[in-house]
Amino acid sequence: MLDVYAFATPNSVKVPIALEELGLEYSLHPINVRKGEQKAPAFIKLNPNAKVPVLVDGDLVLTESAAILVYLAEKTGQLLPADGEGRVRVFEQLFFHASALSPAFGQSGFFQRFAAEPQPIAIERFSSEAKRTVTMLDALLATRHFVAGDALTIADIAHFGWLWRREFAGVALDDAPHVARWYAKLETRPAVQRAIDRVNALIPAA
Amino acid sequence: MLDVYAFATPNSVKVPIALEELGLEYSLHPINVRKGEQKAPAFIKLNPNAKVPVLVDGDLVLTESAAILVYLAEKTGQLLPADGEGRVRVFEQLFFHASALSPAFGQSGFFQRFAAEPQPIAIERFSSEAKRTVTMLDALLATRHFVAGDALTIADIAHFGWLWRREFAGVALDDAPHVARWYAKLETRPAVQRAIDRVNALIPAA
Repeated sequence: MLDVYAFATPNSVKVPIALEELGLEYSLHPINVRKGEQKAPAFIKLNPNAKVPVLVDGDLVLTESAAILVYLAEKTGQLLPADGEGRVRVFEQLFFHASALSPAFGQSGFFQRFAAEPQPIAIERFSSEAKRTVTMLDALLATRHFVAGDALTIADIAHFGWLWRREFAGVALDDAPHVARWYAKLETRPAVQRAIDRVNALIPAA
Repeated sequence: MLDVYAFATPNSVKVPIALEELGLEYSLHPINVRKGEQKAPAFIKLNPNAKVPVLVDGDLVLTESAAILVYLAEKTGQLLPADGEGRVRVFEQLFFHASALSPAFGQSGFFQRFAAEPQPIAIERFSSEAKRTVTMLDALLATRHFVAGDALTIADIAHFGWLWRREFAGVALDDAPHVARWYAKLETRPAVQRAIDRVNALIPAA
């Protein structure tokens, strides 16, 4: 049995989506980041970096959502081509997501919503960068059905996580028709719907 | 022959270090980011994302420094264990680098040095986060010789890139003795020295 420690967050949702697409059973354990539970001593033992998601597979405790996606893909031989350009493009997109799109979306949301005082240069910097990364993705999806080629891979799942929470980042898809088409196609997949339902169910009723 | 488009930057240096460690020959082509050459039309054709480094291997044009490291490791069967926990820890560290340490160092440097007006919350946010990621790495290196286990991997090369430019980020290693030891050990490797010398030689004489 696989155990996933997660919440309804952009990085968390990626892991259940992959597990549902792969048809693997898992237990989902809520770590309520709105209450700071990711900083509790019991969770810090799992992940000293105090972030969700965490995957536990027997003795293996694994952090970093994209590293979990690579692990699950290699464990099952699915969602990541074994070789060739297809494989290379998956890693290129996973790292574009991790180093560019994901931090831009996260910081854009933070400075628009949570900073104690307005930081106009920071707001402009990160909201522009978030839009720029979506423009990059749109140009890519004008030429490919999925972000790393013509089949679904873990790179789509990574990008989907933050695009699912694009409103937090102040990002809309009005000027990104190819991203909008790709997003709508992913969102209607039964595995994606099941994963979203399961992470949303982790949020306690108000 | 491999072609590398790069400059004396934290992400660029990772690729020549890997190539030198692997004993592969390559041509290094300067893209002077201080003059904005990464935005020139000829370079945008190689990388629409306008970032160094780029690797060209025959027909393959590959961006994202960490994706290039994975490609070179898998091409040669070196610097990345083929399976087991060793492999998983390399990806965990590559994504910790790409999503946490690298953006924190980069933004910390930007807001301390380049922002047109002071953004105190942004400076505090990113300089704290840069220090926090080094503290995380220090705890890890208290238990391992290298960041993903007891042998050098591409994950060490990724972290080394930004630690080589830690002064830009305002980060010192005074409180991170394990990182300091690890850094000093890497820096004295002949392959690392050759790579640093080659990227430093890309900077035009003033």
